[in-house]
Amino acid sequence: TVGSLSQKPERDVLLQDFEVVESIFFPNEGSNLTPAHHYGDFRFKTYAPVAFRYFRELFGIRPDDYMYSLCNESLIELSSSGASGSLFYLSSDDEFIIKTVQHKEAEFLQKLLPGYFMNLNQNRRTLLPKFYGLYCVQAAGKNIRIVVMNNLLPSTVQMHQKFDLKGSTYKRRASPKEKEKTVPTYKDLDFIQDMQEGILLEGDKYSAVCKTIQRDCLLLQSFKIMDYSLLVG
Amino acid sequence: TVGSLSQKPERDVLLQDFEVVESIFFPNEGSNLTPAHHYGDFRFKTYAPVAFRYFRELFGIRPDDYMYSLCNESLIELSSSGASGSLFYLSSDDEFIIKTVQHKEAEFLQKLLPGYFMNLNQNRRTLLPKFYGLYCVQAAGKNIRIVVMNNLLPSTVQMHQKFDLKGSTYKRRASPKEKEKTVPTYKDLDFIQDMQEGILLEGDKYSAVCKTIQRDCLLLQSFKIMDYSLLVG
Repeated sequence: TVGSLSQKPERDVLLQDFEVVESIFFPNEGSNLTPAHHYGDFRFKTYAPVAFRYFRELFGIRPDDYMYSLCNESLIELSSSGASGSLFYLSSDDEFIIKTVQHKEAEFLQKLLPGYFMNLNQNRRTLLPKFYGLYCVQAAGKNIRIVVMNNLLPSTVQMHQKFDLKGSTYKRRASPKEKEKTVPTYKDLDFIQDMQEGILLEGDKYSAVCKTIQRDCLLLQSFKIMDYSLLVG
Repeated sequence: TVGSLSQKPERDVLLQDFEVVESIFFPNEGSNLTPAHHYGDFRFKTYAPVAFRYFRELFGIRPDDYMYSLCNESLIELSSSGASGSLFYLSSDDEFIIKTVQHKEAEFLQKLLPGYFMNLNQNRRTLLPKFYGLYCVQAAGKNIRIVVMNNLLPSTVQMHQKFDLKGSTYKRRASPKEKEKTVPTYKDLDFIQDMQEGILLEGDKYSAVCKTIQRDCLLLQSFKIMDYSLLVG
């Protein structure tokens, strides 16, 4: 699907495109459209293909690079599964995070796409996640839904300290187990304790970051989303 | 409403904004919000105020200029009412066309706004109408709905000949009555007859115009709109 998309002629994204789900069946023995393979029959669904291609273009992700990163090398499974029970994978070139999501989450993300489009076109400095694609693999009666996102913490960026801030002080301290890691992810109460002076930013940077966070929060509020974190490193 | 909008702080347009209708009651004797006036009581409704303000900004229309052009001088009634039965007015500074529309049309236009937003953000050279605002005046039990658009034919542009092209040859000839005007609006069959060589455009201009028309048509098609004209002058 990723491959065929890159060959399609470019055209504008229309409102309808957000609701499209492209579905391709991959029988074991191959078909006119799909190669033979040595797994069980499966179906590959791409949500809103034209819209996500637009987003990838906006983020400067070339179609062939995208396909190569995701399909040509094994993915690295990440240990931290988060509170949601999702599994996380990293592309071996360190570019993309692949996250499994529940049916409800995938549906919700798809519903957000028109608003997401509007935000990207108005608020280029947005700190919200970069969503590159949403897919579902159907095999043996099971659905595995995955979302492809940017890797916020590429290994090229050296992290001295890492904070996951939610703006709450309720149970917001890194666990003893987390603190044993090489680069632990600290939380709000750790930040208050260890960084009493806060972080010093130049005047324009400070106002740009504040303005961006305000705009992002307005969007999240309109989506009725309150579960978010600001990752500071 | 126009005035109060310009004082509001700027913020991003959200998907919800397309559905908003702002309604202000203007009693004859005045109120906290509105001045007294010597007409009957009326209600002024502004459709999608935040979205249309975004469009006006995109089109480079300053809020105070807009208000001044529409409210400070008398409008000029145009004689050509078109096939739709709409009335047309021109602002005295030659900038804006004000058109009355039926309930259905206003509703339809409002429904198109998200797609219109998407088009403006992707296809800046679009030849589709510029919509600046949609309003409804309720007075004496009657609703008058108006849409404010750009004036396609400002008098500063000298027109030698004018064609309204629909790409059809069925009944597409200017009427004898039309031809008596100083600058008649000719139609497709007149174009074929009088402009046998067509119009010569430079290579890049030609392809730019073709590409733009294709993209505009794709959008119109997605809106299920087939009643359109290309005005050539």
